[in-house]
Amino acid sequence: MTTTSNAAATPLAIIAGGGVLPAEVASEVIATGRRVVLIGIRGEADPAILDPLGQITDSVRLEWLEWGQIGRLLALLSHEGASEAILAGSISRRPDFRSIVGDFGTLKRLPRIIAAMVGGDDSLLTRVIGLFEKEGVTIVGLGAVAPRLLIGDGPLGSRRPDSHAQQAIAAAAAVVTALGQLDVGQAAVAFGRRVVAIEGAEGTDGMLERVAVLRQVGRIGRADEAGVLVKGIKSGQDLRVDLPTIGPHTVIRAHQAGLAGIAGESGRVVVVDRAATLAEAERCGVFITGFRRVPAGA
Amino acid sequence: MTTTSNAAATPLAIIAGGGVLPAEVASEVIATGRRVVLIGIRGEADPAILDPLGQITDSVRLEWLEWGQIGRLLALLSHEGASEAILAGSISRRPDFRSIVGDFGTLKRLPRIIAAMVGGDDSLLTRVIGLFEKEGVTIVGLGAVAPRLLIGDGPLGSRRPDSHAQQAIAAAAAVVTALGQLDVGQAAVAFGRRVVAIEGAEGTDGMLERVAVLRQVGRIGRADEAGVLVKGIKSGQDLRVDLPTIGPHTVIRAHQAGLAGIAGESGRVVVVDRAATLAEAERCGVFITGFRRVPAGA
Repeated sequence: MTTTSNAAATPLAIIAGGGVLPAEVASEVIATGRRVVLIGIRGEADPAILDPLGQITDSVRLEWLEWGQIGRLLALLSHEGASEAILAGSISRRPDFRSIVGDFGTLKRLPRIIAAMVGGDDSLLTRVIGLFEKEGVTIVGLGAVAPRLLIGDGPLGSRRPDSHAQQAIAAAAAVVTALGQLDVGQAAVAFGRRVVAIEGAEGTDGMLERVAVLRQVGRIGRADEAGVLVKGIKSGQDLRVDLPTIGPHTVIRAHQAGLAGIAGESGRVVVVDRAATLAEAERCGVFITGFRRVPAGA
Repeated sequence: MTTTSNAAATPLAIIAGGGVLPAEVASEVIATGRRVVLIGIRGEADPAILDPLGQITDSVRLEWLEWGQIGRLLALLSHEGASEAILAGSISRRPDFRSIVGDFGTLKRLPRIIAAMVGGDDSLLTRVIGLFEKEGVTIVGLGAVAPRLLIGDGPLGSRRPDSHAQQAIAAAAAVVTALGQLDVGQAAVAFGRRVVAIEGAEGTDGMLERVAVLRQVGRIGRADEAGVLVKGIKSGQDLRVDLPTIGPHTVIRAHQAGLAGIAGESGRVVVVDRAATLAEAERCGVFITGFRRVPAGA
């Protein structure tokens, strides 16, 4: 376990977007004996997933906030004594200025918030993290509070990549590594030594759909080649935000695209809904494995 | 002009696939006073394009061959005294073993041909080139016999990239350059500094269709960002085969994807059907420009 700071004695705030990940983080943290302040962002987080956790009143305080109630959020964290927070789950809407002007506490901080949103070269989330830290709240990453949710080294289920698949993993991982330095392309698909698809703004699902179509029309995928999806992170990516994920739907789409398996960068890629993901992997005969990237220049 | 070898006194053989490029190469070469042996591959080259050239009997000898008539092809080149050849035009079908066993001359060379097709790490075309060279026929590139068909430095038509577009060219060119070392991704699309699409097995047209869809659903392309398509070559690519092309349909698809322009690597990208390409660029308001890649490590 890596949770060794004094802050661990105080509750962890989980600022929750969509999907099961916020609840999974909460469960992991509660299991270590630490309290959780769970803040569901309305319109993003799923009440059907978070509300049951809100019933465990001795370990969890659940609150629902609108986008932009930043003043109220900070007041809540201060009142609960939560000096550490984590951002977890998906965000479908990018907040605009109007939604941000939410309450008096937000209004007070408006110049700073606008500066963060208009921002420089950093990503919006990195600047949002800076805002929190100016208020005395440290944003932590998944690796610090729930490392078991990240993919580790080697195979996750019963299936493992054969030598053909390992060749494809190496080819796609080389592309993901080269592109990571350019802040693009967190995923790629290779058949054999040939990289056939690289992720852009369409996202992993869009890329896998494309691979499925290319395969149907016979443009890729000889019988003797193993296809793999490789997911990694950008070089120098802030590990506290927006880690790539592998979930049940990733397995299903990979299978539909005719892939033999999925490789995620060890300690850097989240396996969401692990039980369902592994069940799908077994059902589809798809392997899931962790890999370590070769350091640049090696 | 770069045609300075003694071989220039002998006819140039043009082994012609689909599209207008073989005819364009023939016209350029004839204009220098050199004879041409034009070999149309049946099912690939377009008779409507090549047959009229066959009428210029003092400068052109036109022959149609099937895939796999390699013996007859080499006999023809020998008979015509053509010791230099160029491969031009698109190939839609990958030849298989059955189509290769075409004639006695092919049969004689079969072990060598099979070795080329089963091959090592080189591309099939590189190995085919090796086959020709063993027969005493040198394969030359477009730059050697028709350099005017390649994109040069700077803008091609009346429009030129503004500073926003130059930013996008730099971003996409960085990706194309990084990937070129990995034998993948000869093209990318950027809006502003963000690379949103990278070409894989789907080809440039497929990538531009994807960009058009992403733009329609609002996933990419803010009003203040210029979008560009950048095409380049792989590092160490054999310049005698398979150069990337820009043509009228590239301009139309780029325009449909909401792009401001197209940048091709100077001296490495072919502008096919230049008059029609420029006319489309004017009509659509799309710029076309040549760029030089920044050397790796610079």
